[in-house]
Amino acid sequence: MTYYQQLLPNTLNTKSHSLVFVVYPGVKFLDLAGPLQAFSDAVDESGNSLYKTSITSIDGTTISSDTSVEIATEPLSDWGRRKIDTLVIVGGRGVFAAIKDTNLLSLIKKLGSKSGRVASICSGAFLLAECGLLDGFKAVTHWEYCEKLADYPHIEVEANAIYVNDGNRWTSAGVTTGIDMAIAMISEDNSRAVGLTIQPNA
Amino acid sequence: MTYYQQLLPNTLNTKSHSLVFVVYPGVKFLDLAGPLQAFSDAVDESGNSLYKTSITSIDGTTISSDTSVEIATEPLSDWGRRKIDTLVIVGGRGVFAAIKDTNLLSLIKKLGSKSGRVASICSGAFLLAECGLLDGFKAVTHWEYCEKLADYPHIEVEANAIYVNDGNRWTSAGVTTGIDMAIAMISEDNSRAVGLTIQPNA
Repeated sequence: MTYYQQLLPNTLNTKSHSLVFVVYPGVKFLDLAGPLQAFSDAVDESGNSLYKTSITSIDGTTISSDTSVEIATEPLSDWGRRKIDTLVIVGGRGVFAAIKDTNLLSLIKKLGSKSGRVASICSGAFLLAECGLLDGFKAVTHWEYCEKLADYPHIEVEANAIYVNDGNRWTSAGVTTGIDMAIAMISEDNSRAVGLTIQPNA
Repeated sequence: MTYYQQLLPNTLNTKSHSLVFVVYPGVKFLDLAGPLQAFSDAVDESGNSLYKTSITSIDGTTISSDTSVEIATEPLSDWGRRKIDTLVIVGGRGVFAAIKDTNLLSLIKKLGSKSGRVASICSGAFLLAECGLLDGFKAVTHWEYCEKLADYPHIEVEANAIYVNDGNRWTSAGVTTGIDMAIAMISEDNSRAVGLTIQPNA
């Protein structure tokens, strides 16, 4: 057994971890791209992916981001009967319209309640907050919105954190902090060695 | 005139700067997404974009990245008669197949020679190097590939740099350093104030 295999005892013979991103119109492209890249780069020593990533939206349509890139998605409802290891709500200016979509809120609440881990990047925290999925938890969001997040009476906002992990809830601060949070999750799921291999990739 | 307008004297009444990204199969998604986000976030005080970004490939087809996301592109050849202010070659493991595509090389050489500024992110430097567009210039690439880039006899590799600007050539080191380089370009084109507004965006 190689040194690398010793560091990866729990993952070499397991199925990939299912990681479901949720986006909506006006999502911030880099909020998705950074963590998606980190999880996609996480492979075992044979080069097999440790995460199976899916990008979803309420309708499963192509979603406009805040750049020229549009994002193909599958319907979030397709995950109603499938195991979700980690549900990740992406941030962006569109979140404040998205939190008014009651169908999206109830689906996130339902799927988040059965997911192994629930996470948000940047202002994606407001979708979790609106669903009540952050009630009783410590959390963070983009620094400009921490005060607004603290208006939810049952969330303890840690405004200076890069990311916050409380129980099975993970929330990150602005944009690229989602990459730091993703690497921390990868390290937790596998080993610090796997987490460290992400950053120097070409 | 507001303080902000004083900082932006050259951009308020000009057309957007044309910024053309070049991708190919096996491109690293974050190599594109990071700089694309930075340039997309650069707006004037009225919220108008300072950059018009286009994503191109040799065929103008949908391009597979190293994540689950596929990228819609337009043909690079469409830019043959249009003004390119900045041409940006994206990196990724697919670059070592791409440098064998003689059509792509000759088109990059032709368009790069007439572009206001020529740039690469990460291993994208190898497409510029293969075209001769880095001959006589200082340059950098991902740290793992700096030695290989130095095999091109007319390129002076600065292996410890985050990014290198030499004349109208800009090259960045690995992945997220493309964001640092983009912000430096935005500051050069506009003002440091505009560059600084990119990072705290939600």
